[in-house]
Amino acid sequence: MSQNKQLLLKKRPVGLPDTSTWELVKTNIPQPKEGQFLIKCEYISLDPAMRGWINEGKSYIAPVEIDTVMRAGGVGKVIESHNPDFKEGEYVYGQTGVQQYILSDGKGYYKVDPSLAPLPMYLSTLGMPGMTAYFGILEVGELKEGDTVLVSGAAGAVGSVVGQIAKIKNCKVIGIAGGAHKCKYIVDQLGFDGAIDYKSDDVRAKLKKYFPKGIDVYFDNVGGEILELALGRLAMHARIVICGAISQYNNTSAVNGPSNYMSLLVNRASMKGMVVFDYAKDYGKAAAQMGQWIMQGKLKSKEDIYEGIENFHETFLRLFSGEKMGKLVLKVGED
Amino acid sequence: MSQNKQLLLKKRPVGLPDTSTWELVKTNIPQPKEGQFLIKCEYISLDPAMRGWINEGKSYIAPVEIDTVMRAGGVGKVIESHNPDFKEGEYVYGQTGVQQYILSDGKGYYKVDPSLAPLPMYLSTLGMPGMTAYFGILEVGELKEGDTVLVSGAAGAVGSVVGQIAKIKNCKVIGIAGGAHKCKYIVDQLGFDGAIDYKSDDVRAKLKKYFPKGIDVYFDNVGGEILELALGRLAMHARIVICGAISQYNNTSAVNGPSNYMSLLVNRASMKGMVVFDYAKDYGKAAAQMGQWIMQGKLKSKEDIYEGIENFHETFLRLFSGEKMGKLVLKVGED
Repeated sequence: MSQNKQLLLKKRPVGLPDTSTWELVKTNIPQPKEGQFLIKCEYISLDPAMRGWINEGKSYIAPVEIDTVMRAGGVGKVIESHNPDFKEGEYVYGQTGVQQYILSDGKGYYKVDPSLAPLPMYLSTLGMPGMTAYFGILEVGELKEGDTVLVSGAAGAVGSVVGQIAKIKNCKVIGIAGGAHKCKYIVDQLGFDGAIDYKSDDVRAKLKKYFPKGIDVYFDNVGGEILELALGRLAMHARIVICGAISQYNNTSAVNGPSNYMSLLVNRASMKGMVVFDYAKDYGKAAAQMGQWIMQGKLKSKEDIYEGIENFHETFLRLFSGEKMGKLVLKVGED
Repeated sequence: MSQNKQLLLKKRPVGLPDTSTWELVKTNIPQPKEGQFLIKCEYISLDPAMRGWINEGKSYIAPVEIDTVMRAGGVGKVIESHNPDFKEGEYVYGQTGVQQYILSDGKGYYKVDPSLAPLPMYLSTLGMPGMTAYFGILEVGELKEGDTVLVSGAAGAVGSVVGQIAKIKNCKVIGIAGGAHKCKYIVDQLGFDGAIDYKSDDVRAKLKKYFPKGIDVYFDNVGGEILELALGRLAMHARIVICGAISQYNNTSAVNGPSNYMSLLVNRASMKGMVVFDYAKDYGKAAAQMGQWIMQGKLKSKEDIYEGIENFHETFLRLFSGEKMGKLVLKVGED
């Protein structure tokens, strides 16, 4: 039997991680004891939030410790089990970390069914990004029919679902994405009402054009200048959902706070942060609804899959370079 | 009969207004026609928001135009009336502007009763600042019994009332104010649980001491660094009420936005703006409640009164220098 490839965190990066941030090591594959089972990881989720997990200091979860396996969500197959609740051949989702084999006692793992949806979709629209989009736009954003909605990171795992849900709810939806290809995709394939290319458009002018009466809900995945421009274009009683700030995650100096936050006062608006874990008890309900929309053809799920645990670093950087489309997934690969 | 002294806005100031910002002129006292009445203004309200009103560009209300009377709330006496709804000898509150005599058709004016409370209190706890405090902390801040509450500008017209209402609601209340005198006042006289002197204390350390489990509600009158420090000390599901940003109103460069606003995400917290006018339909109810608290001795109203329309400019600057205590009021004065 082969060895277990594991990716360890070696250094806390300043700015963008480089090849010295992580190290791929080989260890023996662990043996499950009574109550445990062994998972062979098949797909690993790559998410912007992971950049925060390798910083020092507690955020909404504890940081990944140095010399431990890099934290990540993943789906895999139970290949050996001494736990009556998880049988060999079943598939599970959980915090597998970036490694090929994982021991588990079942805590934090739940089963997924590859006959209902492709496995990577459980890391995407039926997983955390989808849940984030669902609860973020509907509950935190308090979306109402007819709202005007702006989404940044609109071609990404969360943003693409946010926009599609808002379209299902009969809202006007404009997405911000990087590059003509992504902008065309969210309009032509996902049904957004319009797209703004932050790399080449005058974002301020486009916001004015698309939102003559202001933005009712802004779903923010990026922070920075785009947040500032959105604040400058709010409608009365607007809601800003703070889901992420990917433009700021690799800053080596202080994060840029929105200098025009007083627009919240002028427009009696709110800015509210969210973490998807808070909605865990309702994941099932949301996944059922999302699954129904997918089957009805109302919601498209797109995964961008790269292969090989050896390529984790290069693949991870695509989150920040924008060189990916939809949900970024790493296929662990054989051996 | 004497002439009407009026303060006209002459220039849009950059930074702190100076003596060239306004000009005091004398005009004839206008004569009320049918349906009108003439008010002799007795007290004028000086508020931080007035600094925003003299900037170019629309905020939550249109800017004061150049060469027009400076906008201000005031209370005065009806001295001549051709309007059946307002009789000579009655007292009214309204947007009098900074002038001695005002014609009105009654629109935007309502009667106040000097036998129930001293006139300046209608500009203070029973007026806009009191209403702002009441709706801001109870509705926007969603105050709950037992919350830990931080108020900045705590010795001011709004902050002092916010803190006292929170004490009435059995919350732990800490105020931030400038100088030992104000800090002593809010603790000894108003019953705050503690005070932080932003001029001499290590605010970060004091926040840590006073809020070991974090701040549930932060009522922000000042913005800037204090907002940033409060964001760094939030409890889960905290609410920040954005009422003002007095530290930033005279900035000549860009306002400092809170660089750590992502604390909203980590703590699932919200930051919400408010403008008191939105609660106009409930002013009566709030004033009745506040009046009851005042009579029960649970709520103290403090007005800091200076005299003479000629002294408007020097008095106005006290808002920003901090050289005042409670609600800043200008007594118009005879002649």
